[in-house]
Amino acid sequence: MTLLATLATIFGVINGFANFPQIYKIFKTKSAKDLSITTYLILTVGSIVWVLYGIEIMNVPVLIMNGLALLEFIIILIGCYMYGRG
Amino acid sequence: MTLLATLATIFGVINGFANFPQIYKIFKTKSAKDLSITTYLILTVGSIVWVLYGIEIMNVPVLIMNGLALLEFIIILIGCYMYGRG
Repeated sequence: MTLLATLATIFGVINGFANFPQIYKIFKTKSAKDLSITTYLILTVGSIVWVLYGIEIMNVPVLIMNGLALLEFIIILIGCYMYGRG
Repeated sequence: MTLLATLATIFGVINGFANFPQIYKIFKTKSAKDLSITTYLILTVGSIVWVLYGIEIMNVPVLIMNGLALLEFIIILIGCYMYGRG
């Protein structure tokens, strides 16, 4: 495994948690008006499809990474709903 | 190719453009204070690594999707720099 392949794998995992600072910021500041609901709706639907696809191909990493992303996007959408109007 | 595999492919492409509504919102409202710079810095570094990895393995889809994501994240970071303080 090359250095870049190792780094790509590490960042694949790190990126799975990349939205947690965004979640923290929304609920700490109680503000989400600058976030695009359209963007997070697209990402949420995409994650749902990929979770189902992960189940279909029975690929655990695909399932876990997209399940985690789906959870994060849903929490962000809840934040947008609660605090999206400033 | 199953229905889910087709949908997963379609949403893989759609997700590559998912951040454009976010970019539009930042530059239209001239406000990005609710966005987490930490989140977008992580996503940017991850994309750089994946672009380099895409070059290393000479995989054009990996290169294009991550190059596009990198471009979007950099534009969002510029938006955060310009409008991040409200």
